[in-house]
Amino acid sequence: MGQGQELYKKAKKLIPGGTMLLSKRPEMFLPDKWPAYFSKSKGCKVWDLDGKEYIDMSIMGIGTNILGYGDDEVDAAVMTTVRNGNMSTLNCPEEVYLAERLVSLNPWADMVRFARSGGEANAIAIRIARAASGRDKVAICGYHGWHDWYLSANLGSEESLAGHLLPGLDPLGVPKNLSNTVFPFNYNKIEELETLLTINPDIGVIKMEVSRNKGPENDFLLKVRQLATKHNAVLIFDECTSGFRQTFGGLYKLFGVEPDMAMYGKALGNGYAITAVVGRRNIMEAAQKTFISSTFWTERIGPTAALKTLEVMERERSWEVITKRGTAISEKWLQLASHHGFKISINGLPALIGFSIDSPKALEYKTLIAQEMLKKGYLAGTSIYVSIAHTEAIIEKYFEAINPIFKLIRECEGGKDVNSLLEGPTCHGGFKRLN
Amino acid sequence: MGQGQELYKKAKKLIPGGTMLLSKRPEMFLPDKWPAYFSKSKGCKVWDLDGKEYIDMSIMGIGTNILGYGDDEVDAAVMTTVRNGNMSTLNCPEEVYLAERLVSLNPWADMVRFARSGGEANAIAIRIARAASGRDKVAICGYHGWHDWYLSANLGSEESLAGHLLPGLDPLGVPKNLSNTVFPFNYNKIEELETLLTINPDIGVIKMEVSRNKGPENDFLLKVRQLATKHNAVLIFDECTSGFRQTFGGLYKLFGVEPDMAMYGKALGNGYAITAVVGRRNIMEAAQKTFISSTFWTERIGPTAALKTLEVMERERSWEVITKRGTAISEKWLQLASHHGFKISINGLPALIGFSIDSPKALEYKTLIAQEMLKKGYLAGTSIYVSIAHTEAIIEKYFEAINPIFKLIRECEGGKDVNSLLEGPTCHGGFKRLN
Repeated sequence: MGQGQELYKKAKKLIPGGTMLLSKRPEMFLPDKWPAYFSKSKGCKVWDLDGKEYIDMSIMGIGTNILGYGDDEVDAAVMTTVRNGNMSTLNCPEEVYLAERLVSLNPWADMVRFARSGGEANAIAIRIARAASGRDKVAICGYHGWHDWYLSANLGSEESLAGHLLPGLDPLGVPKNLSNTVFPFNYNKIEELETLLTINPDIGVIKMEVSRNKGPENDFLLKVRQLATKHNAVLIFDECTSGFRQTFGGLYKLFGVEPDMAMYGKALGNGYAITAVVGRRNIMEAAQKTFISSTFWTERIGPTAALKTLEVMERERSWEVITKRGTAISEKWLQLASHHGFKISINGLPALIGFSIDSPKALEYKTLIAQEMLKKGYLAGTSIYVSIAHTEAIIEKYFEAINPIFKLIRECEGGKDVNSLLEGPTCHGGFKRLN
Repeated sequence: MGQGQELYKKAKKLIPGGTMLLSKRPEMFLPDKWPAYFSKSKGCKVWDLDGKEYIDMSIMGIGTNILGYGDDEVDAAVMTTVRNGNMSTLNCPEEVYLAERLVSLNPWADMVRFARSGGEANAIAIRIARAASGRDKVAICGYHGWHDWYLSANLGSEESLAGHLLPGLDPLGVPKNLSNTVFPFNYNKIEELETLLTINPDIGVIKMEVSRNKGPENDFLLKVRQLATKHNAVLIFDECTSGFRQTFGGLYKLFGVEPDMAMYGKALGNGYAITAVVGRRNIMEAAQKTFISSTFWTERIGPTAALKTLEVMERERSWEVITKRGTAISEKWLQLASHHGFKISINGLPALIGFSIDSPKALEYKTLIAQEMLKKGYLAGTSIYVSIAHTEAIIEKYFEAINPIFKLIRECEGGKDVNSLLEGPTCHGGFKRLN
C-alpha cells in the first residue's frame, strides 16, 4: 500500500467523509488503491506521496484548472501578491478590477459580489434574489451546492434532487421548516416549470444550470427566460461549472439568452479559490438591505489569480482549445467502443466530457479502467475535464493505453467475469457512508 | 483625493455595499478620506495606492494576522505550495496533518472539517449539530456570520440580534419559514437560556462565543455546559474571533469548560483563508449522513498556511505576547483619558482591545481620531487588534501621536464643537445603506 492510502486510512478517522469534496474521495475512483494525495501537480501531471507521476485524464481538480495545474503566469501573479501582502485592514484593489472585468464580460450585468466557494456564491445569489423579489420560493434545475436552501428540496422526498444532484440523499440537519420552499424542475421540460409557477405564484427566483449533460431543446432557455419575465421572477444561471468551458464567460452566450444574475466559480482562478455573483443593478442593490459579509472574501489571492487567469484564457482562447480537444476525445471514445463492438453514450459539455456504458456492470467497468490505467501512470475514470495542457500527443497516448481495457470490457460484456479482474472493491457511484 | 478614494467611488457602483466585509468599509472609519485600498502590507504597516505608509493601530485585517502581515515563514510555506501546485484531482495531505494538529490542540475533539470562511464554518457546524441532535432549533449568543440560519433570529423582531450582531438589521431575503428556529440569549444571563430550553425542549443546539466584550460571571460557561448536557443539546463554541488570542487554541481553555464542537477561523492561517470545525466523534460522524462538500475547501494554501502559523504561534507564544501588549494598551488609554480628565470604558479581549467614550458624540470622536491619526501616518479608530508586530516602541509612539487628540476630545467635552474639527462626514456605527 502506498503512502497515500496509508494517510487516507488516518484521514477517515479524523475527517468525517475522509475529504472535503465528495468527488475527490478515493472511493469514487478506486477504493483501497487510489493514490488519494498529491505532493505536486503541474500541467496535466500529478505526483503522489511516493513521488510516482501520473497523467490526469480524469476530473482535473474537478474542473478548476483549464490552463493546467500550476500555470506559470497565474502562479507568478499569486506569488507577487504573497510578497506584497495578502491581507490588511484596507481592501485589495484587485477586487474592483475583477468586478469591472466581469461586468465587461457580462454586458447585461452591472454589479458583482465575490466569495471563495461555489456553495457560498450560490447562497449569496439566493439571498439577493429573494431580497430583490420579496418572495422566498425558488424553482431550481441542476446542482447548486450543499447549503440548506438547496438541500431543502429533498425534505419532501429524498428523490426530489435525484436527477439534479445525487440519488437518495437524506437532507439530515436541514431545518424541516424549509419544506416547500424549493421546487425542482427537469431540464428541457418547460411545462414542469410552467406548472410550478402556476401552482406557486410566490416563486420569485428561478435558478438553473444552462446545460449539463445535454443541450437545450425546443427553445427551452428562451422559454424559461420568458416565463421568468412574465412572472417577475429573478432568473439565475449557475455557471460555476459551465463558465469558460465553451465561451469566454457564461455558457449562456452560446444560446443568446441572458439571465438577471449569474455565478462563476471553479475555473475562474485556475486552481485558486475565487467565485463571483454578477447581476443587474436593480437586483444586486438588494444586497445593500441585507447582511452579506465575510472576512476571507477580502483576501487578495483570489481576485489576483482570477485577473491573470482571465487574461491568459482570453489570449489562448482556451475555451476553443478545450472544446475542440474534448470533442475529439468523445469521437475517439465512440470509435474505440465501436471498434471493440460495444456501445457507449457520451455526456457533458465537450470540455467536461464523459461516457457511460449501458450495462449493469458500469461501475465495475469504471473501477477496472481506474485500476488498469493507474498501473500505466494515468488517473482515469469515465470522464475527462479537459485543460489546455492536454495536448493532442497526450490524448493519443491515452487512447493507446485505454485500448486494451476497452477490449477487456468487451470480453466482460461477452461473458468474462469483471469481478475476477478487479483487485479491490468496486468504486462508489455517489454519496455513501464511509467506514 | 487619493487614488484609494477614487477607486472606492468606482467600487460602490460595481459592488453592492462597496466591499466584501462590512468592517472594512471606509465609512466605518473616515468617510471620503480613508485610504480604502492597500498596495502592500508587512508587519503592522500598510501602504496605500499612492505608496503612503501607515502603521495599523486598528483592526489588523479584522484580526487575521496575529503574527503581523506577511509573516516570512508562513509566506515561504505558501510559496512552496504555489510552486508545487495548489490543486489537483488528488487531495492535499496538509489537510490531514492540520486535522491531526487541531485534534491535539482540542483533546476532547476527535474529528475536523475545513472550510474557507467563518460563515461557512458556522453553517457546517450547525448542519452537523442539527443532524446529530435530530432537532432543528438553536439557541445562540454572539455573532455567527451572515447565513440564513443565523439571521433568521431577526425574522420575529429586527432587534433580536441587536446585542449580538448589529442593531436594526432587516433579514431581507431570509426565508420567513425559518422564523422561530433560532433563539438568542444574552451573555451571562443563564436564566434566559434556562427559560428558552424549558419553553422549547426541541432546541438541540446551543452556539455561543466564549466571551466577547466581557468575561463569564458566576460560572456562566459551566452552567451553560450543564444545561446543554442535561437537555442533550450540542454545545458549540464559536472561536472564529477569540481563538489564539489568549490561549494556544480556544478561549474556552481559560475557563476549563469544554464544548462538543468548536470553530476556528480568522487567525488560523495568518491572513490566508482557512477555517475549521472540530468536534467529538459521535457528533461529527453525523456529517456522513448529510451532504457537505465544496470544491475550494480542497485547495492547499489554506492548510499549508495554518500548519506553519500554528508552528510559529506556538514557538513565539504569540497569545501571551498580544495579551500582554493589549493589556498595556488598555491601561495606557485609561491613564491618558484620566490625565485629560474624561472617562472611557474598555471592552474586548486584551488582544482585541477597544475603548468607548460615554458621550453622545462618541462616533464624532472616533471619526476625529481616524482623521487626525491618518495625518500622522496611522490607521486608527477606537480598537486595536494586537499582533506580535506591535512592538512596545510602536505602541509608545502611537500614544505620543494620540495624546493631543485625546486633549481635543476633552476640549469638545468641555464645549468645543467637534463638528468644526471634522473635515468630512461622521463615520458609520454599523450597517447602513451606501449611496
